[in-house]
Amino acid sequence: MCTIDVRNERNLSMLMDFYELTMSNGYFQEGLKDNIVYFDVFYRKNPDGGGFAIAAGLEQIVDYIKNLRFTKENIDFLRNKKIFSEEFLNYLLNFKFTGSIYAIPEGTPVFPNEPILTVKAKAIEAQLLETMILVTINHQSLIATKANRVVRAAKGRDVLEFGARRCQGYDGAIYGARAAYIGGVCGSATTIADEIFGVPAIGTMAHSWVQLFGDEYKAFETYARTYPDSCVLLVDTYNILRSGLPNAIKVAKEVLEPMGKRLKGIRLDSGDMSYLSKKCRQMLDAAGLNDCKITVSNSLDEYIITELLNQGAEINSFGVGERLVTAKSEPVFGGVYKLVAVEENGDIVPRIKISENPEKMTNPGFKQIWRLYDNTTNVAIADVITLYDEVIDDTKPYTIFDPVHTWKKKRVTDFVAKKLQIPVFVDGECVYDSPSLEDIRKYCAEQLETLWNEIKRFSYPHQYYVDLSKNLWDCKNELIEKYSMK
Amino acid sequence: MCTIDVRNERNLSMLMDFYELTMSNGYFQEGLKDNIVYFDVFYRKNPDGGGFAIAAGLEQIVDYIKNLRFTKENIDFLRNKKIFSEEFLNYLLNFKFTGSIYAIPEGTPVFPNEPILTVKAKAIEAQLLETMILVTINHQSLIATKANRVVRAAKGRDVLEFGARRCQGYDGAIYGARAAYIGGVCGSATTIADEIFGVPAIGTMAHSWVQLFGDEYKAFETYARTYPDSCVLLVDTYNILRSGLPNAIKVAKEVLEPMGKRLKGIRLDSGDMSYLSKKCRQMLDAAGLNDCKITVSNSLDEYIITELLNQGAEINSFGVGERLVTAKSEPVFGGVYKLVAVEENGDIVPRIKISENPEKMTNPGFKQIWRLYDNTTNVAIADVITLYDEVIDDTKPYTIFDPVHTWKKKRVTDFVAKKLQIPVFVDGECVYDSPSLEDIRKYCAEQLETLWNEIKRFSYPHQYYVDLSKNLWDCKNELIEKYSMK
Repeated sequence: MCTIDVRNERNLSMLMDFYELTMSNGYFQEGLKDNIVYFDVFYRKNPDGGGFAIAAGLEQIVDYIKNLRFTKENIDFLRNKKIFSEEFLNYLLNFKFTGSIYAIPEGTPVFPNEPILTVKAKAIEAQLLETMILVTINHQSLIATKANRVVRAAKGRDVLEFGARRCQGYDGAIYGARAAYIGGVCGSATTIADEIFGVPAIGTMAHSWVQLFGDEYKAFETYARTYPDSCVLLVDTYNILRSGLPNAIKVAKEVLEPMGKRLKGIRLDSGDMSYLSKKCRQMLDAAGLNDCKITVSNSLDEYIITELLNQGAEINSFGVGERLVTAKSEPVFGGVYKLVAVEENGDIVPRIKISENPEKMTNPGFKQIWRLYDNTTNVAIADVITLYDEVIDDTKPYTIFDPVHTWKKKRVTDFVAKKLQIPVFVDGECVYDSPSLEDIRKYCAEQLETLWNEIKRFSYPHQYYVDLSKNLWDCKNELIEKYSMK
Repeated sequence: MCTIDVRNERNLSMLMDFYELTMSNGYFQEGLKDNIVYFDVFYRKNPDGGGFAIAAGLEQIVDYIKNLRFTKENIDFLRNKKIFSEEFLNYLLNFKFTGSIYAIPEGTPVFPNEPILTVKAKAIEAQLLETMILVTINHQSLIATKANRVVRAAKGRDVLEFGARRCQGYDGAIYGARAAYIGGVCGSATTIADEIFGVPAIGTMAHSWVQLFGDEYKAFETYARTYPDSCVLLVDTYNILRSGLPNAIKVAKEVLEPMGKRLKGIRLDSGDMSYLSKKCRQMLDAAGLNDCKITVSNSLDEYIITELLNQGAEINSFGVGERLVTAKSEPVFGGVYKLVAVEENGDIVPRIKISENPEKMTNPGFKQIWRLYDNTTNVAIADVITLYDEVIDDTKPYTIFDPVHTWKKKRVTDFVAKKLQIPVFVDGECVYDSPSLEDIRKYCAEQLETLWNEIKRFSYPHQYYVDLSKNLWDCKNELIEKYSMK
């Protein structure tokens, strides 16, 4: 799909924190610009107290980097700041990314402190990409993760994304719908997400349709005649049980059935969804409309959906608005972009950011990340982060240990170790062909099958093991010792 | 400013809920498309339990409507859905907005249930604008309101917007910075918001600058030589009091002072801001650096800033990230777009949406909104919503009454009544010239001066009066009676 990329029509090269420019100019002036550095993108805490997140946004990062250029207008704007050297500005005018990027594919379940994406590049290039990489991953991973929670709560029922009007800006709606689709929703009300990404657009009528006619029956009748094959009626403009549903049933009988058509569904947008859905189901069934589906859409999220289903609500699909596409309960995905290594005379020298909060200490060095799957069950046992040149030999037993409580050890046998990061750019060349959105969504659903159910609980899930290899653990502790002595 | 409009480079005409298209096609087919309708945009609850919100986003709505067009590609996409008539698609291809829009100017403090924006247009046109109007007002009003809370908490100190990387998409950063500026921040780290809107871009260095050098003193020294006139040093990469601050002071003395320059500031990005800022202030003062400012930036919002200042923290400016520009504590502004009237044979006939929740009942009819200011103090006394053809005669006393507890009355004297909505489009023609962003920001600050302090409390503020005229109140109650009898 992806015939139009909304973002590409815009020049977003100035969407960066100003300090990236002041630093880059400094690197340039000091002759440091070509020093090779390594940055990791990772996050520290799963949203909503969940057990994992879903990585998303890579396709847009690739598009951005491929097309990144600074126009004459951008340069003139910067020149007017009167703090940047002409050499630096001239460098920007001819900018091209020449580094390498490794990333975990979109749709993969990921865990705190794992390098979702790693940039190996000249210092100046790596610095200039920071904001766009972060905002892209943070936004889409946030929404994919939240959407997946809602989808899991619906236990196989359809979830539709309805929230464009409450988004934080236009891209919130556009890329939010894309990410929600990766996370498992079946469609979105946001038409442009269908046009650009092929996220199925869905929608029928608002209260204004019914109000404009004044007469509810007339409004329903007209809709049924206009869309006899896809007639879903919004029945709560006045009174659901006394007016909306009786009118809908009348239209099903008097308008649709004579045409040989069926009423496809009704939608409830207010009132108590448990009580009303059950009453509606009874009334529909009594009228012989057993195949008429019930959609509800009123301030839903994973918790309310769970409660409704626990109460036996008769709901076939959920239209979920602001709470999904803004991730309202926790609207920020805290991905960070941290320097983890620099090259000095051809050697990769690890760097660490010391912090008073132990969990804020970065994992230093150029690394790899492996997921160990049980050979018999295909269940993910643990992730192991190693230095870049280590190999986990899965033909032999492998001992993992908790990086904080190091006496907690586990010997893993009969497993296969898969590298999670794959090359995206190598020496400036894009070597990654993004899968179709459908394939990403399918891959996401498959990968979720490899996780223990205990990790998928909405609250207080089991903590999945993300361990460090012995070499990486040693490297990290050496650096902590060294810097904390200062 | 505003030389480039990022949005205009994109075709966002398909950024609409799909039901706007199904309904519009229906209106078209049924010959209802030219019926004149009235829609209000309003919200029901102030974010964060505050006393008011700040309207923002109008300039972008104007740009959108002026440039709204459907391309051949858009039409082909819709045709492929096989549910739209060719006449309707042809209509879209030649779409031009021909209606009228009235709106409260950006930067105005607004209150629940007030019509922030009113569309009077042919049904089909009014319906097609819904999503873009809502997402624009909802996003920017949300952020302007939140930014203003943070700015008020800082009590005259500078607030800088630092959150682009955590935004919900690119527009979240771009228009978020614009809205934050209206709300009173002094600048933003998001460079593109400076380029497009003139929001002053600010930024110095990240931890990566210090880490890349390895040696903190060398990193600071280099920065000071590169930016001697605007040197602000990030002092928490390793240890603030033992390493970062001593190195900063050394650079101030050994590098900057010999050049005749001063260290402009230090920034703290971790640790306890109250304790550390006071210690840093002491150490800076002891070194004769009394003019060196202290900026802090670590998970700040209006509550933490208030607490820090209550504890006597020595902070000159606050860099506020995700909690401001995503309005993290309440990330959705719940603006809605509701049909309030239709024209029938030239008469304006009010419409209402009945709801089991009394507060969800819309105020029907084509209306005006007035703000009554005390002539002596210039303080806002109350807002009064009237029918469109009513006039509040401010030369005579006027009695306002609570729309729920109608026995609560107040006789207002010696006041001036100003209409809040102004014409933006009249019969398709744009009659509104958006003020500059600086002027909107200034106007916002001035308007806030007219509000009682009691309304500006962060929690449990005094509820400002938003009353209905007797005529409007009667009209509403008649409609409720009529529809609830059904």
